[in-house]
Amino acid sequence: MELVTTFAEARKLAVGRVGLVATMGYLHEGHLSHVAAGRAQCDTVILSLFVNPLQFAPDEDLAGYPRDLARDAILAADAGVDALFAPSSTEMYPDEPMTRVAVAGLGDRLEGRSRQGHFSGVATVVAKLFAGLQPDAAFFGRKDAQQLAVITRMAHDLSFPVEVVGGPTVRESDGLALSSRNIYLSQEERSLVPAISRGLMRAASVAEEGERSGATLVAIVRAEVEPRLEPEYVELADRETIETMTRLDRDAFLSLAVRVGATRLIDNVFFDLSPDGSVVADRGVVLDGPSLLDSPEPGRG
Amino acid sequence: MELVTTFAEARKLAVGRVGLVATMGYLHEGHLSHVAAGRAQCDTVILSLFVNPLQFAPDEDLAGYPRDLARDAILAADAGVDALFAPSSTEMYPDEPMTRVAVAGLGDRLEGRSRQGHFSGVATVVAKLFAGLQPDAAFFGRKDAQQLAVITRMAHDLSFPVEVVGGPTVRESDGLALSSRNIYLSQEERSLVPAISRGLMRAASVAEEGERSGATLVAIVRAEVEPRLEPEYVELADRETIETMTRLDRDAFLSLAVRVGATRLIDNVFFDLSPDGSVVADRGVVLDGPSLLDSPEPGRG
Repeated sequence: MELVTTFAEARKLAVGRVGLVATMGYLHEGHLSHVAAGRAQCDTVILSLFVNPLQFAPDEDLAGYPRDLARDAILAADAGVDALFAPSSTEMYPDEPMTRVAVAGLGDRLEGRSRQGHFSGVATVVAKLFAGLQPDAAFFGRKDAQQLAVITRMAHDLSFPVEVVGGPTVRESDGLALSSRNIYLSQEERSLVPAISRGLMRAASVAEEGERSGATLVAIVRAEVEPRLEPEYVELADRETIETMTRLDRDAFLSLAVRVGATRLIDNVFFDLSPDGSVVADRGVVLDGPSLLDSPEPGRG
Repeated sequence: MELVTTFAEARKLAVGRVGLVATMGYLHEGHLSHVAAGRAQCDTVILSLFVNPLQFAPDEDLAGYPRDLARDAILAADAGVDALFAPSSTEMYPDEPMTRVAVAGLGDRLEGRSRQGHFSGVATVVAKLFAGLQPDAAFFGRKDAQQLAVITRMAHDLSFPVEVVGGPTVRESDGLALSSRNIYLSQEERSLVPAISRGLMRAASVAEEGERSGATLVAIVRAEVEPRLEPEYVELADRETIETMTRLDRDAFLSLAVRVGATRLIDNVFFDLSPDGSVVADRGVVLDGPSLLDSPEPGRG
């Protein structure tokens, strides 16, 4: 694996079909599942690692966001990454960036309501990675469903010749969706949060059994989560437009955001509607044992 | 020359170093000078031809903008274009585009004051052309100085590996800067407009002789233009930031916009400041005889 810090160097390593896994680092099995997907269909896999200030609001956790390049480099190399692109802030933003990319509408709902400017920050940095690295495919997690919708639409509208691929959420053995932010949780908080995925899984089963009412599916999640945690929102939404759906009558995702102490967690299940009207839920993938986030020095111990 | 209508076809024709000349068609010697610049330094020259609705305000001349694909195809082929990319509206905007690219600050001054949203429309469509065609160099006119600044900054901020090249303004033998919109002018209006370039050329000479006051240079232009025409603005501005300059102490352009009947014309001179403090003006290139815009069927007669 080559470690490069400039777009020009990264482009030089790109041979054949190029897959990009864009991350903010502190890798876990979610990111590595995208690397595996990239390996399966691309000749070159680039993993980018940059904690992007544009997508953090002033009151968010930019300064404290976990960073460990040595740890990430070992994990990326072991996973089969060809080029680890870890640009400095100066390479990414040699000047205060004046250009913003925004996807009207998509960025305002759900996460956008409490994270002002977040999705414009995401769309801008991903457009920059697409422009500067010229990948043929890019792999993102379904856990960040709204981000996936924003990036898919941005690439479509701007005619980037990039296939945007959404990979299933990877979960701890008790269901908690992997997120680099999970390491912020205290032991007590950690014991409460499996209620989030438990609620989603219950709703997934009820939907697969035939329930189509958005309100009912939302209520099922709330019934599981609310005794322990206070959700910011629980909503059934269209996967492309992010519009709230009252009935599960097309491809959708059921998602929620929960603030647990100082940490904000999101999770969802994807619903695919088959032509025969039945629903199949993507619950993600559950790990057998502890995740990389449970071990202080993964790849070294 | 190949005529193609999709991004994918255009990319297939791109061999070696690729130069893009982005136009709205109704070609004239200004566009063809960019083709020549592209030919000189690129292996493949793509000329794109699309009247971009995003950069027209509702009250502007989108419907009436001159269009003649047959005429443009002959001119492009004769000039040595390899691929004429003339996408349909459906190829460019299969859905109502939700994504916008905007360069904060740069698009609000000068032209942006009277053309709300214009530069975001320009930045968006050019980002799309850069994303979809992946050129190595792109050629634009210095006549649209603010557009050149917006595109240069957009490409820089988004890390497009594209060299943005600004070519000199091409002028009719009486000094009028070539613009597809010149064909809107009545004979009487046409007789008035050479005052625009006359004012700019006079200011250019005075600046080269040592004048550094922005107000004086502006007054020289106004003295020539105002007896006949009413400028919307006359301003000395920084070439990168488009900020008004009171003194000519760095690279700048002196520009004006004039409404003549129903037609809006813009023109400018570029000033380069040498290390010794002297100023060199780029007045553009003056044609010997009539331009393509003077002849009803260029390339056929």
